[in-house]
Amino acid sequence: MAVVKNSFGNTPTQYIEIDGVAYAYRRLGTPAAVPLIGYQHFTGTLDNWDPVIIDGLAQYREVIVFDNRGVGNSGGKTPATVAEMTADAIAFASALGISRFDVLGFSLGGFIAQQLAVERPDLVRKMIIVGAAPQGAKVLQAFPQLIEKAMKLEEAERFLFIFFTASEESRAKGRATLQRLYARTEDRDRTTAAESVMAQLRAITAWGTDPVTIDLSKVAHPALIVQGSNDEMMDSDNSYVLFKQLPNAVLSYYPDAAHGSFFQYPELFVNEANFFLDRY
Amino acid sequence: MAVVKNSFGNTPTQYIEIDGVAYAYRRLGTPAAVPLIGYQHFTGTLDNWDPVIIDGLAQYREVIVFDNRGVGNSGGKTPATVAEMTADAIAFASALGISRFDVLGFSLGGFIAQQLAVERPDLVRKMIIVGAAPQGAKVLQAFPQLIEKAMKLEEAERFLFIFFTASEESRAKGRATLQRLYARTEDRDRTTAAESVMAQLRAITAWGTDPVTIDLSKVAHPALIVQGSNDEMMDSDNSYVLFKQLPNAVLSYYPDAAHGSFFQYPELFVNEANFFLDRY
Repeated sequence: MAVVKNSFGNTPTQYIEIDGVAYAYRRLGTPAAVPLIGYQHFTGTLDNWDPVIIDGLAQYREVIVFDNRGVGNSGGKTPATVAEMTADAIAFASALGISRFDVLGFSLGGFIAQQLAVERPDLVRKMIIVGAAPQGAKVLQAFPQLIEKAMKLEEAERFLFIFFTASEESRAKGRATLQRLYARTEDRDRTTAAESVMAQLRAITAWGTDPVTIDLSKVAHPALIVQGSNDEMMDSDNSYVLFKQLPNAVLSYYPDAAHGSFFQYPELFVNEANFFLDRY
Repeated sequence: MAVVKNSFGNTPTQYIEIDGVAYAYRRLGTPAAVPLIGYQHFTGTLDNWDPVIIDGLAQYREVIVFDNRGVGNSGGKTPATVAEMTADAIAFASALGISRFDVLGFSLGGFIAQQLAVERPDLVRKMIIVGAAPQGAKVLQAFPQLIEKAMKLEEAERFLFIFFTASEESRAKGRATLQRLYARTEDRDRTTAAESVMAQLRAITAWGTDPVTIDLSKVAHPALIVQGSNDEMMDSDNSYVLFKQLPNAVLSYYPDAAHGSFFQYPELFVNEANFFLDRY
C-alpha cells in the first residue's frame, strides 16, 4: 500500500507558464503510471477541492488540480465555451509533460471531461464525472436564475444552497465540508474574478442550449458517474441520461444529496473512485 | 482484518426444522454482531450464489444463505405470494436465533427484502437489493413470457439469456460465472421442483400486477440498490424508481449488464457491498 507523501492541506501552490499565462496548480501523492487531473466546478478554485477526497485518491496515485485560465490564481482570460476550456486543460497537461491521465471532473469540470474524451481520447485513460449533465441538458437554461438566487445568500448559506439539500442531515454534512475547505489558512487561492465567473456562466448555459456537437456513444473510456438524489442545478435524472449515453460507465447515486454529492459522502466516494481507477 | 474460516465452495449444507419443514442452508464467515442473510432469485438454490461474492462478503461477517420453503433441498410447499415467502424467511431467521441481520436480496429475493423491511423493520439493519423492482412494476406482467422463452434454451444458454446481455463481453463473463457456480461438485442442491417454480412465478407476476400494499417511503434502513444497464426482466429503470422511493438508498448501475449485474462485476460489487455494510 502506497503512503501519502504529503496532504492536500499543506501542498504548496505551484505555477507553470503557458503562452504567457501562469496557471496555478497543486500536485501531490504517489507518482504512478497514470496521474489524476481534477477539473473544477463553476467559480471553484484549488481551495474548493475537498482535502479528504484529494488525500484519499492521492494515497494510490499522483493527483494534480489546477485553476483553469482566468480562475482563482491563474492568469489570463476565462473563455466562455467548454470547448475552449478543454483546449486550455489539454495545454496544461501537455505543459506538465503528461500524455495520458485520469480525469476527475466536477460539474462544469464534468463537461470538460466529456468534451476531452471525445476530442482527445488518446489523452484520457478513465474519467470520473460528478454532478454533471450531458450536452443539451435543458435544465441548464435555469442555471443563471439559480445562481442569481444563490448570490443573494451569505457565503456559507450559498454553499449549502448550491451543494446540499434542505434536510438538516445534509446541511450538517455541508457545514462539515466547509470546515474542511477552510482548514487551510495560508497560500489560499484568490476568489475567481467576476468577469471569469460570467464567462463560465455563459459556457454552462451554452452547454445546455447550444446544439449537441459531441457523440458520447463512441467514448470507450471507463467512466464513473456520481450524482446526488436531488441536484436541482443539473437535474439528477441527467446523470442517468449520461450513463445511458456512455457505453462503459458505472453510475452511483447518493441519497438525500444535491450537487455536492461527493462532499456529503467523501469516504463512500473515495472507496468507489479508488476501486474504479485501480481495479475496474 | 478478519480471516475467512472456510469458503462457500466447501461449506456443507445444513438443515433446520421449522413446523415440520426442513430448511436447507449454508453458513460461513466470521461471526460478527450482524450476520447477512441472502434471499435468492426465481428458481435459484444455494448453488446459485456466486462463491466469489459470498466469500468476499464473508471476509468481514457471517453469511447465511438458505433455500426458502419448497426450493432446492428445502421441504414444504412454496407459497405463491411474496408476503408468505417473507413470513417463511422471518421464521427461518428466528429458528436460527437471529434477531437482527443484514439482507442481500436478489431479484425475487429483493422483493422479499422490501416486504420484510416494511413488515418487520426491527429485524433488518441494512439491505442490499440486486436486480429487483418495486411493487407495482408493470414490466412484471411480461415476466412469464420471458421465462417461457428462456425455458426453450439449453441450460447454459438459458443462464446467459436471463442474466447477461447479448454482447460478447457480457456473455464471456456469464460463462465465467457458470464455471464458478459449477466448481462445487458435491453436496449440491436439488433443482427446484416444477410446482415450486410455478408458485414463484405467480408471486413475481403478482408483485407487479397486484395493488401496491407496502410504503417504501417510511423505510429508514440504509439500502444499496444494484442493477445492470439492460435488465429486461425487471426493466433497469425500475431500480431508479426504487431508489427514489427509499429515503436512504445508494444506487449503482453497472454497464453492459443485465439481470445478473453482480455476477458480471463480482469484485466491484463486493467492494461496494462491504463498504456499505461496514462503513456507510
